[in-house]
Amino acid sequence: MPAQTSGDSPMSSRIGSTETAADRAGIEPVRPAGPLGERYRTVRAMTERLAQPLSPEDCQVQSMPDASPVKWHLAHTTWFFETFVLAAHAPGYEVFHPAFGYLFNSYYNAVGDRLPRPRRGLVTRPTLDEVYAYRAAIDRAMDHYFESVGEELPSDASAKIELGLNHEQQHQELIVTDIKHALASNPLRPAYRAGAGQPSHAAARPMAWSFIAGGLAFVGHDGPRFAFDNEGPRHRVYLEPYQLGTRLVTTAEYVAFIEDGGYRRPELWLSDGWNAASTHEWNAPLYWERKDSAWWNMTLGGMRRVAGSEPVCHVSYYEADAFARWAGGRLPTEAEWETAARDQEPDGNFLECGHFHPQAALDGPGIAQCFGDVWEWTGSSYTPYPGSRPTAGALGEYNAKFMCNQLVLRGGSCATPASHIRATYRNFFPPEARWQFTGIRLAKDV
Amino acid sequence: MPAQTSGDSPMSSRIGSTETAADRAGIEPVRPAGPLGERYRTVRAMTERLAQPLSPEDCQVQSMPDASPVKWHLAHTTWFFETFVLAAHAPGYEVFHPAFGYLFNSYYNAVGDRLPRPRRGLVTRPTLDEVYAYRAAIDRAMDHYFESVGEELPSDASAKIELGLNHEQQHQELIVTDIKHALASNPLRPAYRAGAGQPSHAAARPMAWSFIAGGLAFVGHDGPRFAFDNEGPRHRVYLEPYQLGTRLVTTAEYVAFIEDGGYRRPELWLSDGWNAASTHEWNAPLYWERKDSAWWNMTLGGMRRVAGSEPVCHVSYYEADAFARWAGGRLPTEAEWETAARDQEPDGNFLECGHFHPQAALDGPGIAQCFGDVWEWTGSSYTPYPGSRPTAGALGEYNAKFMCNQLVLRGGSCATPASHIRATYRNFFPPEARWQFTGIRLAKDV
Amino acid sequence: MPAQTSGDSPMSSRIGSTETAADRAGIEPVRPAGPLGERYRTVRAMTERLAQPLSPEDCQVQSMPDASPVKWHLAHTTWFFETFVLAAHAPGYEVFHPAFGYLFNSYYNAVGDRLPRPRRGLVTRPTLDEVYAYRAAIDRAMDHYFESVGEELPSDASAKIELGLNHEQQHQELIVTDIKHALASNPLRPAYRAGAGQPSHAAARPMAWSFIAGGLAFVGHDGPRFAFDNEGPRHRVYLEPYQLGTRLVTTAEYVAFIEDGGYRRPELWLSDGWNAASTHEWNAPLYWERKDSAWWNMTLGGMRRVAGSEPVCHVSYYEADAFARWAGGRLPTEAEWETAARDQEPDGNFLECGHFHPQAALDGPGIAQCFGDVWEWTGSSYTPYPGSRPTAGALGEYNAKFMCNQLVLRGGSCATPASHIRATYRNFFPPEARWQFTGIRLAKDV
Amino acid sequence: MPAQTSGDSPMSSRIGSTETAADRAGIEPVRPAGPLGERYRTVRAMTERLAQPLSPEDCQVQSMPDASPVKWHLAHTTWFFETFVLAAHAPGYEVFHPAFGYLFNSYYNAVGDRLPRPRRGLVTRPTLDEVYAYRAAIDRAMDHYFESVGEELPSDASAKIELGLNHEQQHQELIVTDIKHALASNPLRPAYRAGAGQPSHAAARPMAWSFIAGGLAFVGHDGPRFAFDNEGPRHRVYLEPYQLGTRLVTTAEYVAFIEDGGYRRPELWLSDGWNAASTHEWNAPLYWERKDSAWWNMTLGGMRRVAGSEPVCHVSYYEADAFARWAGGRLPTEAEWETAARDQEPDGNFLECGHFHPQAALDGPGIAQCFGDVWEWTGSSYTPYPGSRPTAGALGEYNAKFMCNQLVLRGGSCATPASHIRATYRNFFPPEARWQFTGIRLAKDV
Repeated sequence: MPAQTSGDSPMSSRIGSTETAADRAGIEPVRPAGPLGERYRTVRAMTERLAQPLSPEDCQVQSMPDASPVKWHLAHTTWFFETFVLAAHAPGYEVFHPAFGYLFNSYYNAVGDRLPRPRRGLVTRPTLDEVYAYRAAIDRAMDHYFESVGEELPSDASAKIELGLNHEQQHQELIVTDIKHALASNPLRPAYRAGAGQPSHAAARPMAWSFIAGGLAFVGHDGPRFAFDNEGPRHRVYLEPYQLGTRLVTTAEYVAFIEDGGYRRPELWLSDGWNAASTHEWNAPLYWERKDSAWWNMTLGGMRRVAGSEPVCHVSYYEADAFARWAGGRLPTEAEWETAARDQEPDGNFLECGHFHPQAALDGPGIAQCFGDVWEWTGSSYTPYPGSRPTAGALGEYNAKFMCNQLVLRGGSCATPASHIRATYRNFFPPEARWQFTGIRLAKDV
Repeated sequence: MPAQTSGDSPMSSRIGSTETAADRAGIEPVRPAGPLGERYRTVRAMTERLAQPLSPEDCQVQSMPDASPVKWHLAHTTWFFETFVLAAHAPGYEVFHPAFGYLFNSYYNAVGDRLPRPRRGLVTRPTLDEVYAYRAAIDRAMDHYFESVGEELPSDASAKIELGLNHEQQHQELIVTDIKHALASNPLRPAYRAGAGQPSHAAARPMAWSFIAGGLAFVGHDGPRFAFDNEGPRHRVYLEPYQLGTRLVTTAEYVAFIEDGGYRRPELWLSDGWNAASTHEWNAPLYWERKDSAWWNMTLGGMRRVAGSEPVCHVSYYEADAFARWAGGRLPTEAEWETAARDQEPDGNFLECGHFHPQAALDGPGIAQCFGDVWEWTGSSYTPYPGSRPTAGALGEYNAKFMCNQLVLRGGSCATPASHIRATYRNFFPPEARWQFTGIRLAKDV
Repeated sequence: MPAQTSGDSPMSSRIGSTETAADRAGIEPVRPAGPLGERYRTVRAMTERLAQPLSPEDCQVQSMPDASPVKWHLAHTTWFFETFVLAAHAPGYEVFHPAFGYLFNSYYNAVGDRLPRPRRGLVTRPTLDEVYAYRAAIDRAMDHYFESVGEELPSDASAKIELGLNHEQQHQELIVTDIKHALASNPLRPAYRAGAGQPSHAAARPMAWSFIAGGLAFVGHDGPRFAFDNEGPRHRVYLEPYQLGTRLVTTAEYVAFIEDGGYRRPELWLSDGWNAASTHEWNAPLYWERKDSAWWNMTLGGMRRVAGSEPVCHVSYYEADAFARWAGGRLPTEAEWETAARDQEPDGNFLECGHFHPQAALDGPGIAQCFGDVWEWTGSSYTPYPGSRPTAGALGEYNAKFMCNQLVLRGGSCATPASHIRATYRNFFPPEARWQFTGIRLAKDV
Repeated sequence: MPAQTSGDSPMSSRIGSTETAADRAGIEPVRPAGPLGERYRTVRAMTERLAQPLSPEDCQVQSMPDASPVKWHLAHTTWFFETFVLAAHAPGYEVFHPAFGYLFNSYYNAVGDRLPRPRRGLVTRPTLDEVYAYRAAIDRAMDHYFESVGEELPSDASAKIELGLNHEQQHQELIVTDIKHALASNPLRPAYRAGAGQPSHAAARPMAWSFIAGGLAFVGHDGPRFAFDNEGPRHRVYLEPYQLGTRLVTTAEYVAFIEDGGYRRPELWLSDGWNAASTHEWNAPLYWERKDSAWWNMTLGGMRRVAGSEPVCHVSYYEADAFARWAGGRLPTEAEWETAARDQEPDGNFLECGHFHPQAALDGPGIAQCFGDVWEWTGSSYTPYPGSRPTAGALGEYNAKFMCNQLVLRGGSCATPASHIRATYRNFFPPEARWQFTGIRLAKDV
């Protein structure tokens, strides 16, 4: 339920940051087990929990063309179920509002015209309350649909619901990153939730290198569990022997790069990266500010000093690549990353932890932080796997048409739901993107 | 009081347009008589009445860099009194919030840094509720100040309050025009108020020409009543004899221009105007749409068919100039306009009428519609009058620094408060501006 | 005859600056007396003399969208006579090349399609030689036409030839200013002509003020001599008493403005001017560079130190206006300027002097430098005079359609042909233009 | 020697297209055998032969930021030898002109500042003649250097000369493609050489598929012969079985794509490709124009009708990818391409053939047109090979820093010197580039 209807949201909580016990409590994990209807309710509830601290004004704003209003995320994920499940499978279903298809379609050309992305922030009506009413109506219709089909859910509908839930989890992450960008655009630098973004006080484990022998490896998803169509088919890749850093690069290491002139030495940068850094006048990661001879950064709990043991975050591919060159290493390929991560448990600092910020790698054996904390830039362009075929129909637009000018990222972040990630998962962003929780793991030739 | 706290604002009212009796009732006039404190309260209350139909989301949005969020208007007008009256004149006054100066200063370089204009829409906090609280606090402080000084209000403070009230009335007009632009940006084309923008059913009076002899004329404000510094000093201008159209140009006349290829004939246009029309693909006034072989237009009551007897509105200077050339006339100079209007009563279709749209000119003698309905583009560039001196200090930035690349408009509009306008009043906008209520009166040489 | 066919153009002369006696000699004056045919030949020859020091490469380049290649000027002025005189009046005339109308029309919509202005620099063919052949062919055809009509030149043709000659003189000035911009774009800063742009060694006369009483004045051209259609009709203007500076503002005075923080104090600037100065990072006039703690400037003779007694040049309207405000004065209106200059001899430092740079005002009575040296920004927007009517047909596009967003400049410059200027002459440029020889004369209220 | 000094270049030859026997004769091949000094002279002479038909004006123009003036290519290739060979290895060598380093450095940050690329077309001086004098001086100095070292050429110098010659051959191709773009920007569409771009009259061989078994393959350059640093090291890649089209896609096939709505169906396009096509209003390959119900295209011999049997050319990666999707295939990866081409003779339609346009594939066995005709877009992003290390020092900037946002192209084109290409050669361009001779070969999964 949105903040504006609750009585306990005093003025100071939005401008300042009065922390409460509830704020510190974290967010209960979503349990992926159980039948699809239960998972539907759990995932949908998580989305609303993420929007709970936000006012109607917060949910309205679109702070850059790449971001979307939280209200739009709330509506678009709902439109997905309405369009691909209810309208397609529920007999006699009538659409909630004839214009919502136009307003809340993201990019599916096959489904019809749509509002241009940079104009999403202009749609003040429906209001946030009305979007919540839309969500409630679709959830009731979905409940009714689950009930009506019982055990006999058609596999086609089941596949779309599964996709819709994974889709909604992707938008959960975007809600977090987009509202972080919006709040950081406010000169007051207000907090999303008091208690979020607390600094790591622990020291980071020392940097070490893990050797991987290479040879013919299998890469990509196979088997009955859900995966996006871009994760398959499973195929062979030949790898030379390589080494991977046993933890993520920390802010302390990144500050050393800055202090060594990292942002002023073109020889460290890709040509396009140097142009981007010059054009945008980058001299530190996004959300960092220099104050009183120290680095501060915006977190979802507001501004605070950068903690040196934490993984560096909100760097572009260009910065990750330049850092790696400076450090005498390189970024791993996605095949190298997947080969190293395949046998690890997908545990880590995920959305449900409630930190909303990467945490220092504790001491221990093996390769730390493969999952959670930050998405790891790989040196691999986002291209189709050998033999891949996109899903037929409108949902074939989900991944394939973005396979150009993007780099693959792996491992999930502190804003990724735990049940959403796996070793074969391929995230992708253009090389200049910085508003996601993106960081650096180093690789080296042997 | 803003909409989101009232119980009577059903969902349909914002998306659709359920008209109520109250909606049709218009807005009670502000009475300019009486002591300054009473006027202060009346003007301030009108601003909030204008924002009353709007949700927090409506008040948040900035639909283009030239427009501002309604929330910003509510706060900025308040900041004006806080900064120039309370902080300067009320002993011991402490500022409400240290960051509000940065957030809500519009363009006064002398008062300090400020948020860049195109970023006003990004400020989700303070929320609308908090801005209302800010207004209430400043109004209480102003009340207290009026009480404490009693009859002994210093003339300097009095002048600034007078300026602040006129300033707030200017922002009342901008609230109307900016929210119209925002709502028109929404594909649903929702209404601001049901009952606003009703079409004129009356026929327009026939077009005729009023002859004015010219010679040496006096132009500009003089005397004790309030006027902006750009209205003086009063000075002599020599005018050749001329004629003025006895009413505004109607939409029917403008449709004839369109149908005669007005937007496709470069010989009718200024060179910059032709470039603007080509770049922006203008083929009709702003807010007009072609549907089912008819012209429709967005009003503050939603979309409806264009009514032929109404004054054409939302045209740029370039369009006004091209129309005049097509019609065999020209636009009047501001001295010609003022000379003709000087002796007229400033009556007309103003903000308080509650139409929020220009109305047809009824039959009658003389020159109709000099005041209200639409701002009339003149052919005069906005330049200082001979001998003029801007006000000293920060308030000297009010008008003088905009005296370049702008044209003068005269007469006020259906969104101008009645007590705000006079014959010497000089409004000004760049030639390509279209989102104000701007229209056309023709002139001719003899 | 162009440089590339002459044997005496050693390599060093274009990169370095080997001055010769001939270079220092100046350019012989064009004699405006005599019948039209003789004036035709004289004016046409002057154009080629101006292009003589330039290579085919120099004549090809277009260094910004506002400038044109010298080759284009050579061809366009020729196309003017071909189109408006020969094709219209010479029986049986056949156009030289069917595509030249498209290539060399500047902006006459009524004459047909044309090459977009920013693409003029892309037309490598016809070559410079071929354009000279075009000029020669049209000159022969004009000679033949003059001969064939003898004394019976139709007044319509005569008027167009007169306009064509004045038009060509305007392009002579543009050849000088456009090639200056092109050469200044070259990191080598090469000279146009050795000997051009020599510094004034004389001291400037002291600054003083000339009082003018004002009252009803007549402004604008009247009588049988040629003038552009924008200079009339002659009409009455009422002027308050005013004062004019008795010489132009010098670079020494302008350096004082710079050193007093002129470019860093927003209160001195128009709002649009401050934006322009910030966007373009202006901190001195165009072509000035700071080297070794001194100001240098690019002249048509190459880089040299700024001479303090010379009029400041290559400033925008915004800079002129800011300087005037800083100096406690203002810019004159065009009526004020014309009233003061009307009775002066139009003598001065013109194109024929061969300086190609403004010179210091020598001691003497009265108002110096009204004509020549630099165009003087006025505070008057470029608008039609009362009762004006543009010429009918394509030539009506000559002036009228530019009457928006431009300021009037008066008096001619060191690149203006002497026979081209008069007291009623109205030049006009947008407020941000700096590549013309534009400077500052101050005015003051009494 | 440039055209403007020869007597046999009548005016008509540049505007029209009077073909001569010499024009049709083609260009004699460069013989790569022989000692380095001989190869130096042969490669350098070829560059000047390519510039021979061009006037100083042609050589001056820069028709878009991605292209460079021919004069700049002539100078930059010379600067390369001066800087990396003479200044580094020839004792006592003094630079020809101190400013040429600034003017003619392309992108080597390590060598110092340089002229921004989009401003290359502004440098009218040195003139073309002076650049030829620069070339002659450097060639003399190189001759002298070759003589002085005799058999004892240091291997470091030898490697740089070899790189310089390959570098110059790359600029030979750019001279052809850049001047094609410049001439196509001229509304007259003039010819580079009469006789160039003659249409293929032969029918194309029928389309067939060649099966390749895949498995572990070796990719990349190895051995003593020259290759760029981006071609190694040789390494293993695992390939699934695949098929390759036995010839390039023809214009007739591409017209079928156009006529089937290829440019209007978003489902065929990558998302970025659809945006590029919409933004630039692509509806056919670059240089194609629709006239009289037929497709014409600009060639280096001027405009002529598109010949259906010729390979389609001047398509972007986005168009190649959309075509492949429409045709039911895909683009090959670079490893697939190299594996198929490795054992082929690098014969084909190269620069020396003098066609300057791709030719129809004649009947025959095997895979045709692997080399020459057009560069073939692969689906592979341009990234470093496993274990690669860029050359140390300034020359390390040659390739590595461009490894982002580019796609690999293989096989050379009709503008590539025959001695320059090999199976491991990796060319690269951004996906929207169209001004190179780029075409399409299809691949398919088995």
